[in-house]
Amino acid sequence: MGGALDRQAILAATETALRRHGPDKTTVVDVARSLGVSHGSVYRHFPSKTALREAVTRRWLESTHQELAVIAADPAVPPPERLRSWLTCLFSTSREQATRDPQLHATYWALVTEQSDVRDEHVADLTRQIRGILAAGVGDGSIAVADPAVTARAIVHATARFHHPAHAHAWRTRPTIAAEFDDVAAIVVRAVTRGGR
Amino acid sequence: MGGALDRQAILAATETALRRHGPDKTTVVDVARSLGVSHGSVYRHFPSKTALREAVTRRWLESTHQELAVIAADPAVPPPERLRSWLTCLFSTSREQATRDPQLHATYWALVTEQSDVRDEHVADLTRQIRGILAAGVGDGSIAVADPAVTARAIVHATARFHHPAHAHAWRTRPTIAAEFDDVAAIVVRAVTRGGR
Repeated sequence: MGGALDRQAILAATETALRRHGPDKTTVVDVARSLGVSHGSVYRHFPSKTALREAVTRRWLESTHQELAVIAADPAVPPPERLRSWLTCLFSTSREQATRDPQLHATYWALVTEQSDVRDEHVADLTRQIRGILAAGVGDGSIAVADPAVTARAIVHATARFHHPAHAHAWRTRPTIAAEFDDVAAIVVRAVTRGGR
Repeated sequence: MGGALDRQAILAATETALRRHGPDKTTVVDVARSLGVSHGSVYRHFPSKTALREAVTRRWLESTHQELAVIAADPAVPPPERLRSWLTCLFSTSREQATRDPQLHATYWALVTEQSDVRDEHVADLTRQIRGILAAGVGDGSIAVADPAVTARAIVHATARFHHPAHAHAWRTRPTIAAEFDDVAAIVVRAVTRGGR
């Protein structure tokens, strides 16, 4: 196998092991054994168990980023409405991933509590996408904000309850969570829409 | 001692024990021993360890509510500015309590993860106070919202990053946290202020 294939094979095997055993019980030795290689072969690609879990989590979050990027770049939707759709997609994919894939979500959450950079990278990417929507709205006059980068960061933080993994239990259990999201999204869209009331 | 005194004495002793030993290691037996009574005497007032921890946490949160209520009811400050001051006070007291009193904060956080009603009660009280500020602003024309109760709930959720105990680590460690708060508060105030841009 070439180096690139090895790396992808290791990530896929780790993802399978994490889904089966969870972040606490999945070891590098388990992953190596499932691939029929030595743990040294795994360490050549990923210097630590944390590096391995981070790489799997990055790949897991990446699918969300791609789906959001399509919405963020859609010129057919006016920017204020695009922002609302984008936030709705972020919440629904966050909730879906936490529900459908609880062990990978637990891996992500463990990395957050261990102060991994994975969360900051995710937030930076979300912020960049929102900044793009706001800039499009400033361009066509539908959005009024002084600094799209600052407001984009504020929007990520104002919606933390609907994408930060610490709140996943509420997504699964609160019957009112969808209405709570709608009301927060309404505040955010209203705050940035020119003459929006 | 009368019943009322007993109850307060038990709460004070539990608070002291929690500060010293943390929520995991504080038992009803420890509390009873520190008061020189049987654990049965404690159970007569509080039917479980959880009930005891909830009562201490409610009292601990109560001091915040009182400080906020003074701001919420101050007629000298225009409602949009009052809302900003109120949110600033909520963030600063949440951060201060988590930093100065880490074991009581850990007790609160443990109750949240155990789905205690303490957090919902706290949120309901915060929502009521914000609703009062919004209603005052609708009354004097400085604030425009369709339903102060709905928007009040949305404001509590939009600022969760700055008062929900899951985010306490960020309050203590992120050098940018105060700026992040200011930007979210600006969005919220802007969303409700009549003609506010």
